[in-house]
Amino acid sequence: MTARVAVVMGSTSDWPTMKLAFDLLEELGIQAEKHVISAHRMPVQLQEFGQNARENGLEIIIAGAGGAAHLPGMLAASTTIPVIGVPVKSSNLNGLDSLLSIVQMPGGVPVGTMAIGNSGAKNAALYAASILSLHDAAVAANLADFRAAQTASSIESEEDLK
Amino acid sequence: MTARVAVVMGSTSDWPTMKLAFDLLEELGIQAEKHVISAHRMPVQLQEFGQNARENGLEIIIAGAGGAAHLPGMLAASTTIPVIGVPVKSSNLNGLDSLLSIVQMPGGVPVGTMAIGNSGAKNAALYAASILSLHDAAVAANLADFRAAQTASSIESEEDLK
Amino acid sequence: MTARVAVVMGSTSDWPTMKLAFDLLEELGIQAEKHVISAHRMPVQLQEFGQNARENGLEIIIAGAGGAAHLPGMLAASTTIPVIGVPVKSSNLNGLDSLLSIVQMPGGVPVGTMAIGNSGAKNAALYAASILSLHDAAVAANLADFRAAQTASSIESEEDLK
Amino acid sequence: MTARVAVVMGSTSDWPTMKLAFDLLEELGIQAEKHVISAHRMPVQLQEFGQNARENGLEIIIAGAGGAAHLPGMLAASTTIPVIGVPVKSSNLNGLDSLLSIVQMPGGVPVGTMAIGNSGAKNAALYAASILSLHDAAVAANLADFRAAQTASSIESEEDLK
Amino acid sequence: MTARVAVVMGSTSDWPTMKLAFDLLEELGIQAEKHVISAHRMPVQLQEFGQNARENGLEIIIAGAGGAAHLPGMLAASTTIPVIGVPVKSSNLNGLDSLLSIVQMPGGVPVGTMAIGNSGAKNAALYAASILSLHDAAVAANLADFRAAQTASSIESEEDLK
Amino acid sequence: MTARVAVVMGSTSDWPTMKLAFDLLEELGIQAEKHVISAHRMPVQLQEFGQNARENGLEIIIAGAGGAAHLPGMLAASTTIPVIGVPVKSSNLNGLDSLLSIVQMPGGVPVGTMAIGNSGAKNAALYAASILSLHDAAVAANLADFRAAQTASSIESEEDLK
Amino acid sequence: MTARVAVVMGSTSDWPTMKLAFDLLEELGIQAEKHVISAHRMPVQLQEFGQNARENGLEIIIAGAGGAAHLPGMLAASTTIPVIGVPVKSSNLNGLDSLLSIVQMPGGVPVGTMAIGNSGAKNAALYAASILSLHDAAVAANLADFRAAQTASSIESEEDLK
Amino acid sequence: MTARVAVVMGSTSDWPTMKLAFDLLEELGIQAEKHVISAHRMPVQLQEFGQNARENGLEIIIAGAGGAAHLPGMLAASTTIPVIGVPVKSSNLNGLDSLLSIVQMPGGVPVGTMAIGNSGAKNAALYAASILSLHDAAVAANLADFRAAQTASSIESEEDLK
Repeated sequence: MTARVAVVMGSTSDWPTMKLAFDLLEELGIQAEKHVISAHRMPVQLQEFGQNARENGLEIIIAGAGGAAHLPGMLAASTTIPVIGVPVKSSNLNGLDSLLSIVQMPGGVPVGTMAIGNSGAKNAALYAASILSLHDAAVAANLADFRAAQTASSIESEEDLK
Repeated sequence: MTARVAVVMGSTSDWPTMKLAFDLLEELGIQAEKHVISAHRMPVQLQEFGQNARENGLEIIIAGAGGAAHLPGMLAASTTIPVIGVPVKSSNLNGLDSLLSIVQMPGGVPVGTMAIGNSGAKNAALYAASILSLHDAAVAANLADFRAAQTASSIESEEDLK
Repeated sequence: MTARVAVVMGSTSDWPTMKLAFDLLEELGIQAEKHVISAHRMPVQLQEFGQNARENGLEIIIAGAGGAAHLPGMLAASTTIPVIGVPVKSSNLNGLDSLLSIVQMPGGVPVGTMAIGNSGAKNAALYAASILSLHDAAVAANLADFRAAQTASSIESEEDLK
Repeated sequence: MTARVAVVMGSTSDWPTMKLAFDLLEELGIQAEKHVISAHRMPVQLQEFGQNARENGLEIIIAGAGGAAHLPGMLAASTTIPVIGVPVKSSNLNGLDSLLSIVQMPGGVPVGTMAIGNSGAKNAALYAASILSLHDAAVAANLADFRAAQTASSIESEEDLK
Repeated sequence: MTARVAVVMGSTSDWPTMKLAFDLLEELGIQAEKHVISAHRMPVQLQEFGQNARENGLEIIIAGAGGAAHLPGMLAASTTIPVIGVPVKSSNLNGLDSLLSIVQMPGGVPVGTMAIGNSGAKNAALYAASILSLHDAAVAANLADFRAAQTASSIESEEDLK
Repeated sequence: MTARVAVVMGSTSDWPTMKLAFDLLEELGIQAEKHVISAHRMPVQLQEFGQNARENGLEIIIAGAGGAAHLPGMLAASTTIPVIGVPVKSSNLNGLDSLLSIVQMPGGVPVGTMAIGNSGAKNAALYAASILSLHDAAVAANLADFRAAQTASSIESEEDLK
Repeated sequence: MTARVAVVMGSTSDWPTMKLAFDLLEELGIQAEKHVISAHRMPVQLQEFGQNARENGLEIIIAGAGGAAHLPGMLAASTTIPVIGVPVKSSNLNGLDSLLSIVQMPGGVPVGTMAIGNSGAKNAALYAASILSLHDAAVAANLADFRAAQTASSIESEEDLK
Repeated sequence: MTARVAVVMGSTSDWPTMKLAFDLLEELGIQAEKHVISAHRMPVQLQEFGQNARENGLEIIIAGAGGAAHLPGMLAASTTIPVIGVPVKSSNLNGLDSLLSIVQMPGGVPVGTMAIGNSGAKNAALYAASILSLHDAAVAANLADFRAAQTASSIESEEDLK
């Protein structure tokens, strides 16, 4: 079965963050693949990947990177399928540089940007699910279940306040 | 014909920015509607709007707000269709507060966040188009044309450097 | 005996911070209750809580949240009793996002915002006491005693400089 | 009739901002007085003002200042009635310095901080009203009316989107 | 005569800034060419330009861009000749986003980053001259003259203080 | 022998930082005293201390505080002897709030502000010495020796690069 | 009569700011001289100026610069008389870069830093006066008068609130 | 054999960072030397070093410093060979102060600035190599090999995602 979502990251050091997206996609029943594509070390591969994404059956790209994070924006420049950007926490500026490098795209090529770090990675999977839910009843149901479960879990957690 | 995308803003003062999204949706052949829903002055209406969005036929919500911008996140909390957030430039902190209030969503409820201001509003329309393009060949073609045209326009603009 | 102040937080992970507010309210002789209400996972409960706050006998809501912290502002949107906001330290941006998301409310709906983190939580309790002290001589006396004691303690602490 | 709320500012240059608070208090039927008290040029007067505030019948102090804004915090240090702080926009750092100087109070002495600038000044008046509304039915009614009117006005404003 | 330095920018709107680099190169006797290459609208052309830069006789690329400024870093990813980055002032965040997007390159692919805006553009030309001066006595002499002249001009400017 | 310099801090938690100033004053042969004066818990004592500083024989006040750090500015408001401010590192914003609260004094009342944290504390002592050196040959000599020694130490440290 | 204070700036473009310091020194009866010394264009002159400052009879140097403002710190590195730094507002980052470049001096060489811009320039003069006041009764009297006058002026200004 | 590149730092505490540059230069076959030159403790040595750099056979200076980092800019002020600046992470502001102090050079004297910290130090060596590669085929080959190897390493690293 073909992947519908690609989880792409600039380096294996981003994997602990991006794995949260990958695993949650799986939990939501969405077939995903994962790749290391460094914008600065693999620019040729990046462009090729972006240019072929749609014909390779991909519907969404989730791209995470840190620092001067060019990966999400450059993938978006090479395709017209939605790119979801995850700013990975950087070692010195706590991801503020990652965030601004991803979200402040000039008019013409958008990246749907998530929060810095782990929350952003999880939300990237949920955002992919919300996009796919428009035409996939199974994903829609899984997403609705996930949301209902997390609401229930929040409600119940009040018991834990001691 | 029903709107597929709702362009929602916290105040009419956001309209000069959000109009860029609305007009570009139209240019891309995507039926849109526009609303003022203040998160803080109309919380009841906000929730109702979010809860009914999917059954009302909406596929995407584009929400713009400034300052402590709660509109995109609270709409996302009430629906499972994709919400695209546009941080409107604020008068004192230049939209940094708007950006952080929209993008830094906790894990569980995502908002696909665009750049601050006009670029973000235009990109919100393009991002909506990229989502719709997955199942709408006409939108896909319009988006591809738009992107090709802007590439051509950039290439030609080199002539203007004197 | 009914609670006069509700200490509300977005997640149990905020409790170590918010407990400082809760415990200090108790120390000041102010009856309090505590709740987990996630703005994004429990928007329906949030609105209900806000709408009924005044008739349920609450006089003040202390609300703490981190990141894109919408809880204090959305509670303030649903009630006219005073809401005191506590920006909980966030994992990546040290609470700057929490602070801006809470304090930068647009004109029309205020949140009385405290400092980021533990200082803010303690001060939320003291601020609640100062509000209640306007019509409650016992609380006024307790607050005056607390302030006098902390002044004395600061004065004495000079002995500890070695 | 005695003033219940004092609107205090560090300099007459803060008046265009703070006047928004003063006028809205009046509109809400709350008797107010206004003062220039510079924390750095009038420290003696500041302390005296704070120390006598409660016995002079004041219930709330609204204090606005810019830059290294010490006025709200130092007033709060001299009284136990609630102090509402308004960070006035500063000429170089856009009020970020004002905000941090007011909101980041150490544990022990709270200031209920509003947004930077005009929104903050208006909200200071509304916050004062919400505090007074706990024991003043007329203010409570005026505040409820104000909030209802602004909701209605937001709803109607949708007509203006062209 | 072939250009030794290419001045590249993401959009013609960057030209008023980048022209300062171009003109100063000329003044320093360094043959330059100028191009519009949008990282996001012309990714194919960008890569081609970078890959061929060295064999086309270019010794240095000066690249200016604003916002999520990916142009300098992506050019650096496609060539091993020195890339000098100029963060163009952005409309909302004053170029802080441009600066971080250019300077915070991950280890492996460097961009020599200049100051935001006009100072940075002028300095890009001077930095190119300092690089070329290592093997070009004429440029070295021109650069030494330029530096001596600006020192003299600074010294003389003291006369203007009235 | 009377103290010429007072090292004042808002809380004993500032002592590990401020001790660096105190000890270096001693090393430079400058008689110093140390005090805890919390701006917010001891405003009366603060004012008294400032008002009497000059007649008590103090020539300089070194004041350290963190967060909304009002101590240096309020001391400066109560005296005309030089006040040197040390922004103590705060737990959430790393001392940026402390720095802005101290340095951004409005025109009329200056604080000579040092770097955040340990460097600032040490430099406060050296700055006090430079002020005293204008009329005290012994301090001038000690300061010159200290500076010469640190230069020598820096030069020698090159040996340690392995 | 010899100047006791030198007002030094990196460029004549800093003069509108630094003139406020110069004029206020004059008003306070303190003999001053003014110089343009660019840290980056006149490093030789800078060092010479610093090294000779004390023997030339200078007691204090007030140094203003913007951007990567190295002038105050490098002067402080060449002398042991007090250096007062004024961060001049920069065109892109509003003086935040100037401030950090001046105030964040490493341990060993201090600069007494003032606020960004006009307030800082005025306060530099007042700070110089406070230093000189320790051994100059006339300056002490002038400073006391100045401070008393500004207090009176603040008190009277309350009349202007309409 | 003479050094072509000097790696200079303000303090031995910068060595763990700057060693990454030094070692990589060696790996790329570029003869380097290393020095401690504190801008503020050794201003005379700094100037001498800069003034003699070119005649001593140096082609490039890599300078790292933290906080109010004046070393790179002041070296650039004393020479016309290229200076590469490395902002060393500072203890309180995470290197943001170092970055702004190095990169925001006024027009006239450029510093080619790298990323904060370790990435920046490694990239400084690569940037030096790219400059030297213009006239040194061996360095050009080494640099091309290094870049090819790191691309290959990135491609292979995808295997490690589990």
